[in-house]
Amino acid sequence: MKTILVVGIGTGSPEHMTVAAIAALNRVDVLFIPDKGASKADLADVRRTIIERFVTSAARQVSYAVPRRNAAEPDYGKGVDDWHGVLAGVFSGLIDQVPDGGAGAFLVWGDPGLYDSTLRILHRVERPIEVQVLPGITAVQALTAAHGVALNRIGEPVLITTGRQLGAVETDTVVMLDGQLAFLQADPELEIFWGAYLGTEDQLLIAGRLGDVAERIVATRKTARERHGWIMDTYLLRRR
Amino acid sequence: MKTILVVGIGTGSPEHMTVAAIAALNRVDVLFIPDKGASKADLADVRRTIIERFVTSAARQVSYAVPRRNAAEPDYGKGVDDWHGVLAGVFSGLIDQVPDGGAGAFLVWGDPGLYDSTLRILHRVERPIEVQVLPGITAVQALTAAHGVALNRIGEPVLITTGRQLGAVETDTVVMLDGQLAFLQADPELEIFWGAYLGTEDQLLIAGRLGDVAERIVATRKTARERHGWIMDTYLLRRR
Ligand SMILES: C[S@@+](CC[C@H](N)C(=O)[O-])C[C@H]1O[C@@H](n2cnc3c(N)ncnc32)[C@H](O)[C@@H]1O
Ligand SMILES: C[S@@+](CC[C@H](N)C(=O)[O-])C[C@H]1O[C@@H](n2cnc3c(N)ncnc32)[C@H](O)[C@@H]1O
Repeated sequence: MKTILVVGIGTGSPEHMTVAAIAALNRVDVLFIPDKGASKADLADVRRTIIERFVTSAARQVSYAVPRRNAAEPDYGKGVDDWHGVLAGVFSGLIDQVPDGGAGAFLVWGDPGLYDSTLRILHRVERPIEVQVLPGITAVQALTAAHGVALNRIGEPVLITTGRQLGAVETDTVVMLDGQLAFLQADPELEIFWGAYLGTEDQLLIAGRLGDVAERIVATRKTARERHGWIMDTYLLRRR
Repeated sequence: MKTILVVGIGTGSPEHMTVAAIAALNRVDVLFIPDKGASKADLADVRRTIIERFVTSAARQVSYAVPRRNAAEPDYGKGVDDWHGVLAGVFSGLIDQVPDGGAGAFLVWGDPGLYDSTLRILHRVERPIEVQVLPGITAVQALTAAHGVALNRIGEPVLITTGRQLGAVETDTVVMLDGQLAFLQADPELEIFWGAYLGTEDQLLIAGRLGDVAERIVATRKTARERHGWIMDTYLLRRR
């Protein structure tokens, strides 16, 4: 039996690391480090900084290439499923490098429960493993903290969704994974709290009436994306 | 000008503390410690442990009694509003104890953005202050981590709501602040992931088909509540 720790590392600032997550990284024999290619080098830097700054053990670091999802597959569900199948094979190979009775750790961006597939992929790995999850600060919390705003109104619900799934905003809504600028289709009377590269030194924040700030967000996003080669942004929409 | 830090401390385990939150507590002149009365002594213990274990500065600790909301007020909104008004007065008095140009910190359970009123109350305080928020691990993340389950399905939304607001479950839903056992009204075919005292040594977890486990949750909840004098529980409901 091997133990696999799935460790939330927060969303940009190494200081998002929890005491439990630091202890977890120092408890394992092997740290698995994803290599997502040059385009997301800044993210790899955050992981590297976390390891340099907080890992004092002699844990071995094993890098692995993250295969890309076949974006040409017309059926999104099937595309993801196939991709997870490939990743389960990659993970099996990684787990085989953990000594018997030992432990390995995956460093997961944000919290392992929020729009992340590490847990689902580990369920498909055919190895006798015990999985333990360490929570991490999500982009949602990084967003509201940066804006100094509460996620929800008093006693009211909040929906967390993706750009792809955003419909008419009846409930206060957080949008993640939005490559298609879904906010441009939303009611201009809504209030938006937008943030990109949250937690990092490049953090960008814009807030206001959607109709007033939408164009500025589009322009800011475009410039930043060109400069970094990638962007991760999240926003809260709500009635005023 | 004074700086007021609103510091998320996680939801039960002192090890939920982030590196940023620890630095924040050590940066201030005054730490404000709520006294919620004997019934929630375990929660006060967590705060005390955090301070003993992580605060190495000479920050002064100022305790304050938390007034109770008037539960007899028939209008819930007005009851909360009145209560926040009283608390704004209490907070003003606390802030007056921070030296000019200095800083004070409120230690907030979980994350300051999620079902917490500290930020809203600070907005009502008539003092020249700069508010900074430090995110913390929420009960939602503590729940999914403890169950080793993802919060959302692939690309699907998730709703965070209260027992009071829980309706028919069409979207995967996390329920907090549920004193009235709202899950008993939900479809028994749903899957539930329930957790109480998450992050603490008394953590309780139950998962399964709602129809199969609802009675066990009710009984477990009752016994635990009698033993502790209070209970905090959270659960995820979803279609199977
Ligand atoms: C695959 S999801 C991972 C979410 C992560 N597990 C979490 O807990 O936040 C990636 C999405 O998270 C959001 N995100 C993650 N990090 C972010 C950051 N530093 N700033 C803004 N958004 C971020 C973006 O919406 C991005 O599209
Ligand atoms: C006033 S809200 C505060 C939430 C907190 N700010 C957070 O980020 O989780 C209190 C509710 O949070 C949930 N909660 C907080 N701590 C918890 C714990 N340790 N275990 C289970 N539920 C918890 C319960 O639903 C409780 O009714």
